Amino acid sequence: MRLVPMLLSAAIAASFPAVAAETAGASTPATVETRIADASMAAVAGLREAALASSLAWDITESLTTEIGPRLAGSEADARAVEWARAKFTELGFDRVWTEPVTFPKWVRRGESAAVLGPNAQPLALSALGGSPGGTVEGEVVRFADLAALEAAPAGSLAGKIAFVDYRMERARDGSGYGPGSRVRSRGPSAAVRAGAAGFIMRSVGTDSHRMPHTGITRFDAGLDPVPSAALSVPDADQLARLLARGPVRMRVALDCGWDGEYTSQNVIGEITGASRPDEFVLIGAHLDSWDLGTGAVDDGAGVGITMAAAVHIAALERRPARSIRVVAFANEEQGLIGGFAYADRHAGDVARHQIVAESDFGAGRIYGFNTGAPAHAKAAEAKIAEALAPLGIERLPGEGGPGPDLIGIARKGATWAWLGQDGTDYFDLHHTPDDTLDKIDPDALAQNAAAYAVFAYLAADAEGDFGSAPTDPAPAL
Amino acid sequence: MRLVPMLLSAAIAASFPAVAAETAGASTPATVETRIADASMAAVAGLREAALASSLAWDITESLTTEIGPRLAGSEADARAVEWARAKFTELGFDRVWTEPVTFPKWVRRGESAAVLGPNAQPLALSALGGSPGGTVEGEVVRFADLAALEAAPAGSLAGKIAFVDYRMERARDGSGYGPGSRVRSRGPSAAVRAGAAGFIMRSVGTDSHRMPHTGITRFDAGLDPVPSAALSVPDADQLARLLARGPVRMRVALDCGWDGEYTSQNVIGEITGASRPDEFVLIGAHLDSWDLGTGAVDDGAGVGITMAAAVHIAALERRPARSIRVVAFANEEQGLIGGFAYADRHAGDVARHQIVAESDFGAGRIYGFNTGAPAHAKAAEAKIAEALAPLGIERLPGEGGPGPDLIGIARKGATWAWLGQDGTDYFDLHHTPDDTLDKIDPDALAQNAAAYAVFAYLAADAEGDFGSAPTDPAPAL
Repeated sequence: MRLVPMLLSAAIAASFPAVAAETAGASTPATVETRIADASMAAVAGLREAALASSLAWDITESLTTEIGPRLAGSEADARAVEWARAKFTELGFDRVWTEPVTFPKWVRRGESAAVLGPNAQPLALSALGGSPGGTVEGEVVRFADLAALEAAPAGSLAGKIAFVDYRMERARDGSGYGPGSRVRSRGPSAAVRAGAAGFIMRSVGTDSHRMPHTGITRFDAGLDPVPSAALSVPDADQLARLLARGPVRMRVALDCGWDGEYTSQNVIGEITGASRPDEFVLIGAHLDSWDLGTGAVDDGAGVGITMAAAVHIAALERRPARSIRVVAFANEEQGLIGGFAYADRHAGDVARHQIVAESDFGAGRIYGFNTGAPAHAKAAEAKIAEALAPLGIERLPGEGGPGPDLIGIARKGATWAWLGQDGTDYFDLHHTPDDTLDKIDPDALAQNAAAYAVFAYLAADAEGDFGSAPTDPAPAL
Repeated sequence: MRLVPMLLSAAIAASFPAVAAETAGASTPATVETRIADASMAAVAGLREAALASSLAWDITESLTTEIGPRLAGSEADARAVEWARAKFTELGFDRVWTEPVTFPKWVRRGESAAVLGPNAQPLALSALGGSPGGTVEGEVVRFADLAALEAAPAGSLAGKIAFVDYRMERARDGSGYGPGSRVRSRGPSAAVRAGAAGFIMRSVGTDSHRMPHTGITRFDAGLDPVPSAALSVPDADQLARLLARGPVRMRVALDCGWDGEYTSQNVIGEITGASRPDEFVLIGAHLDSWDLGTGAVDDGAGVGITMAAAVHIAALERRPARSIRVVAFANEEQGLIGGFAYADRHAGDVARHQIVAESDFGAGRIYGFNTGAPAHAKAAEAKIAEALAPLGIERLPGEGGPGPDLIGIARKGATWAWLGQDGTDYFDLHHTPDDTLDKIDPDALAQNAAAYAVFAYLAADAEGDFGSAPTDPAPAL
């Protein structure tokens, strides 16, 4: 439980890749220009087509989301997901498969309900935010148009009341509307407590209009007494706003949830051994856990399918790349990037062995952009990779992207990141809702993702020279 | 409770208008050709434009769905909805406002849950069917591709098991996929009992792919011992089908619901008095009750808004039509057209005073088609009405349509029906789900509906001559 306040401000700020772009760029250990050989380029033409024609990424995603379903970190299904990943890596023929423990406080959800009371009595659909305490509160609802308005509420002004932040996030291909939206979730509950509120509710951070609340982790600042905190579905937030426009509204919010001890899960890792420099590797990955409401298809079963499949497509080639391909299925991303930071701590001494790192954790939309945090001596190689990605409809986009959430830790320690930017236009229709299920994934788009990861990983692993990964010394403070 | 078995087979067969088309056409009492005067046609040009420019239908629908919200027949909200309708008619300036009692067995839902058990343990989203008993059943799931397959299961073959009908309804503008879909809901539970099953589940009758189960009434044939019966959301039915493709699946279905005594609600009626034949009237209407999961916006708050607004637009004209406009907000359509049959019983002696009758109960999509069940002497008048509807994008479609569900009773007693056919392409994305909320309604489409009802009702009420309503003698048996 101690970990949570320390990690979450970073976690939430960085949970969309673009926000973390400024963490890019390690120090540059080499000045010899990195090259991609013609033989490497020749190898990926067939790899790209084979991956596009394959249903493997879909099959893996289907297996995880169907056989395990929701896999909340610390739940019984978390353990089954770890066993699933270990067995899947083995079944897919990875050369090495292992796990590394990840310990974190366990949060559990048992149920939740809410209702408008009085002459307009009716139920409202909401979900507790991860990290919320349980409890039942009844009180008058006070609406704030945005987080700043709630943060401006004087101390004590909301005594006995339920604070309601009615901020509507905006739709964008790059998910840029998620930053301001998720800040309501991360900072709103503490602001409500400071103003004396008995409870906190918010319009979901989402772009849909279904009765599907979007959950997600929140935190309470040190020294504050947490209050029940939850997100209303978008239509329910609309409904509450309409009722409030008519006059005062009293509500009951009943959450049965809370922190419950510690749990140890596992980062699950599979490696395809490189032909000539097996101790160095390209790391690709995704997170294995999901929120409990859906089956974690776009967040992040798709990423697991994409990255496992990409490595398998590479292993199937006659000509293996020089370096290894390491695929990591991270534990507990959702509650604070906990698996990612555990990986970074454990592998702090191996930073230079990470040729480059990339995580797929932004759904299953087609990849449209590519960039890396590599220094000048690897920019020609980056351009060459972009050239091999172009037939997939992918553009090189300098200045965009950043490490995926679980790679923020190792990137801060000096590993160079790559970004394969997915179209997230529809991502926040589904993100953290019951609707995050397999049927929302386009199999062709998923194959395009796997092809892009395969091409990128192969070329980076087979490059003559590095992409600048080197230990930062000293590592910058979190 | 006695009413239910008697009414439901009719109710479910007729719950989509097209299915009931064969009930059309009363006997023909007059041979003088019915005419629409030029002065009537002149009056509706301005009426049509005024209605199109008005937000009144939206405002009424917003008021009902916001202030009352879900209004399950027999619930506390049913009584509030009746008071809302009475007050709304009065506030809108109707000349006469009254209620007529409607008594029915009360069904209550308190909660429900379901889960796959064993190595693929996970929750599944479902809703009890209206009319289901409560109870918790655990057993192996046996899948049937459609109703016929379940009906062919030998007696006793499903002992201790849960029958699952995995039939997928088809999308169509006229909702024609609902017939075979709703038959699974009406007949599946009895077929499951006959085969010895301990419970019944089905793929929702719906065209969406959201985690939103579609509820709806079911029935058990006389002499059968009812079992818990529920509908899975479409993605959950997909998930269950995928799990079953892997091997046997055990499930737990826990429903807390059931019949609980009797309740008396009200049909709420408002009338705009006609200028010269006030005792005759055009009846337009919709149903006031809704299922409990959503706020009953497209089913059928929109119909209430459309028909109330149409009458108000007519009342605002300087030149009132000859006959009155009667607007009926029917009680308890959802559980067996109970308000509609109560109206028919009470007004059996007034059939000839019903100039023509039309119900809006197929959502809020634009009206594309028009037809009536009028005999030959009124076909020229029908064509004239169609001419006035044409600027709204409405086509005369002979051979299509039928009375709305609540008008089946009075149509069988001899009242002539009119059909203003709405585009239902998206209707079964929302129908009977939590997602049936105000945000799904297009205000412009709603205004087009109100304009069409106003034009139709005005011209029919102002016609020189009748549309053939006359008592059937004897009334055909239900």
